[in-house]
Amino acid sequence: MSAELHALSLAELSRRIASRALSPVELMEACIARIKALDGGLNSVLLLLEERAMAEAGAAEAEIAAGRLRGPLHGIPIGLKDIYETAGIPTTAHSAVLRDHVPAEDATTVRLLREAGAVIPAKLSTWEFALGGTSFDLPWPPARNPWDRRLDPTGSSSGSAVAVAAGLLPGAMGSDTGGSIRNPAAWCGIAGHKPTYGLVSRKGVLPLSWSLDHAGPMAWTAEDCALMMEALAGYDPGDPASADVPAPDFAGAIAEGRRHGLAGLRIGVVRHFFECDLPCTPPVLTAMEDSLRVMRELGAEVFDVTLPAFGEYAAPGNIIARAESWAIHEAWLTEDASRYGAYGRRRLASGAFVTASDYLHAQRRRSLLIARTLEAMEGLDAVVFPTARGTAEPMGVDTMAPKGPPAFFARVFNLVGGPALSVCNGFSPEGLPVGLQIAGRPFGDAMVLRIGDAVERALGTRARRPLLEVVDA
Amino acid sequence: MSAELHALSLAELSRRIASRALSPVELMEACIARIKALDGGLNSVLLLLEERAMAEAGAAEAEIAAGRLRGPLHGIPIGLKDIYETAGIPTTAHSAVLRDHVPAEDATTVRLLREAGAVIPAKLSTWEFALGGTSFDLPWPPARNPWDRRLDPTGSSSGSAVAVAAGLLPGAMGSDTGGSIRNPAAWCGIAGHKPTYGLVSRKGVLPLSWSLDHAGPMAWTAEDCALMMEALAGYDPGDPASADVPAPDFAGAIAEGRRHGLAGLRIGVVRHFFECDLPCTPPVLTAMEDSLRVMRELGAEVFDVTLPAFGEYAAPGNIIARAESWAIHEAWLTEDASRYGAYGRRRLASGAFVTASDYLHAQRRRSLLIARTLEAMEGLDAVVFPTARGTAEPMGVDTMAPKGPPAFFARVFNLVGGPALSVCNGFSPEGLPVGLQIAGRPFGDAMVLRIGDAVERALGTRARRPLLEVVDA
Repeated sequence: MSAELHALSLAELSRRIASRALSPVELMEACIARIKALDGGLNSVLLLLEERAMAEAGAAEAEIAAGRLRGPLHGIPIGLKDIYETAGIPTTAHSAVLRDHVPAEDATTVRLLREAGAVIPAKLSTWEFALGGTSFDLPWPPARNPWDRRLDPTGSSSGSAVAVAAGLLPGAMGSDTGGSIRNPAAWCGIAGHKPTYGLVSRKGVLPLSWSLDHAGPMAWTAEDCALMMEALAGYDPGDPASADVPAPDFAGAIAEGRRHGLAGLRIGVVRHFFECDLPCTPPVLTAMEDSLRVMRELGAEVFDVTLPAFGEYAAPGNIIARAESWAIHEAWLTEDASRYGAYGRRRLASGAFVTASDYLHAQRRRSLLIARTLEAMEGLDAVVFPTARGTAEPMGVDTMAPKGPPAFFARVFNLVGGPALSVCNGFSPEGLPVGLQIAGRPFGDAMVLRIGDAVERALGTRARRPLLEVVDA
Repeated sequence: MSAELHALSLAELSRRIASRALSPVELMEACIARIKALDGGLNSVLLLLEERAMAEAGAAEAEIAAGRLRGPLHGIPIGLKDIYETAGIPTTAHSAVLRDHVPAEDATTVRLLREAGAVIPAKLSTWEFALGGTSFDLPWPPARNPWDRRLDPTGSSSGSAVAVAAGLLPGAMGSDTGGSIRNPAAWCGIAGHKPTYGLVSRKGVLPLSWSLDHAGPMAWTAEDCALMMEALAGYDPGDPASADVPAPDFAGAIAEGRRHGLAGLRIGVVRHFFECDLPCTPPVLTAMEDSLRVMRELGAEVFDVTLPAFGEYAAPGNIIARAESWAIHEAWLTEDASRYGAYGRRRLASGAFVTASDYLHAQRRRSLLIARTLEAMEGLDAVVFPTARGTAEPMGVDTMAPKGPPAFFARVFNLVGGPALSVCNGFSPEGLPVGLQIAGRPFGDAMVLRIGDAVERALGTRARRPLLEVVDA
């Protein structure tokens, strides 16, 4: 984008398009130019759909010029993590296994975005099949963190987070099975929303783990995510887990927050998560206290709340994820495991020996954890805790090595199913972004986004963008 | 019961209690006397709670005399399959494993029945843990069919069906994982209703297979089942599968049917089930044609409808049931398998080697079958097919021998989850009862019971009771 455009939020671009101060063609040209200039050093784009996107932007422009503005996403470029199926456009999951996979149909969410007027200019990098870790043995290189290219953006929605953080695109779709929207959002300093399980269709999104997968938006601000959620939320009989419930009023919630701040809201701080269960680094702790302070200043009552210990969520989540991903990949792995990267092969194989009994007990333990978590959240509008223990870590760590303590808190709400948003709530002394996680009761997505919007604005974190220079790939 | 009382339906007994023509104490005395006189030859009662039931009947009588009639179940004796937990009363699941199990709490359904004024005089025989087959190596003998004691009532809610058919009790609770309410209802000539999955709580009902288990009523008529459903249906957060939906209007549906017959209803006949997939015996086919004729006479439009082939439901149901029952029994079996009967041991062990992937694929195949089944039922008020291939078969068959074709159609709606009722729709030339299955869309329970009531009345099957004579145990 032009120097000006790339620093604007999706919401601001949307307002300019609506007022005809900005044309979708001009915006798309700016995005494509910036991708060409900068992505060689970031690897966020797997496939650039230049010609097609320019034609679609032209169509959007004509429609808007004719007075038929579809809504806030009309003419807005939205990138897709390359596990979102796109009709007639390759969808690789960043894997040699699907190098030649060209779906016949758009994923439901892609169709909804297109119907809302969004234009899809790029398929974005991920971890292989959204699995596990940053790898260097796949057909495409892993994405790099725009705040410091030596650092990992983390994943698996790496390309989506990097493209948004670098100002290449105003919004992107990610998916989140154990944190894959929120974790890269935190390390890349953007907003990423994991919706309530069942609120956004996963039909046509390549699955990793049926009962933990969530599709959701990633953008510069919580407000941007809310605008995308307006188009994305809704019942889809094509996704067996889709919930037939009325969609939340996202725009209304954001407007309410702009008028009344957080007056009257009750917010729980899960202090034991970040002080005891998985102690966080000083920048994360400082950003947390800043966030709690502004929440109080905005009128919220803030309480300490005790959820089950962070470690309790680990075992059931692990067993469920491994069993479900093995069930999904078993046939391909048996046919030719060599097409997978080393990490994917090892990680997937570990699911082969999970028995049905192990799986059922894990799901039952999960049900009890859900009940205990929601009981602890009774009467609260949201709970907050950090998204990550610390800021982004170096790229190129050996992902096959034994792991230390987890780097992220995200998995809790994959198990629970409630909405969970990560927003940027500060920066380390080195200038790396820190993420705050705001989680709610099932279908409380609009509330969570309202709180995120208020915190972002009060802390002023959205004024700071990474400095990028053109690098040869 | 006295010669008169034992031949009355629950609904008729209820009307007499309401009009004070009958006292709950008199009714309970008659039930207990008949159990003592006849059950020695039937083995339907595992535990008779004589003293307690008489005291509770006395309390009901006093309350009603004081003008506080709670509703149609007040003062009505209801027996419980011995997998329903009862506070302070042994709950054995007909197994040596639980010989000394005395729960601290009533199952939710037991509590609901008690709150509605019902009195619980007996715990009833079943198959061991409601599993599989009629066995002779358990601590208590299997129940026998009151229409001919040489014949099997089948199970697993054998005791419940036998007690009701023999006129020992006007109603009983059963459970249905693969037909265990409907199958013995058919072979014993009573009505048994498997409610929609999630409509009746299973909390405190010993599980066999979490995703297939249903708790439900068994009684002489469909109307009786509807009266019991009025008390039983409702959301229970203690059962993770419980649905938070408004309870159907059972009484209203029965009343509607009494006024307007089946006028305007659309009923599908799944002819391929009983003519091709699992061909039925002549008495079953004759009773089916009689039933279709009266449905038409009552104003229904009757169509042939094609569901997935009966055999398609077998594999996923089998894998799911085996995996879930192994997960439930694994710890006890590992501790001491010798406490189980031979059938239970063998059947349960077969679930040990189901992998999580097998299980997940079975559940996914099930989802597709549900979608195809409900699509085929679009626009229909119910579908009908026989409950069993034929009439009751001899007791004492070697249940360890390789099985022939299945004897029952019930499993289809355990997988699908919709309501399924079995009513008596005729008799074989030998005088053995035949069962009609009426199945509906999820939460269409009231409609299914209305159709069952109309068919029973039009065919006049409820006038015929088994002839029983006192036999020494």
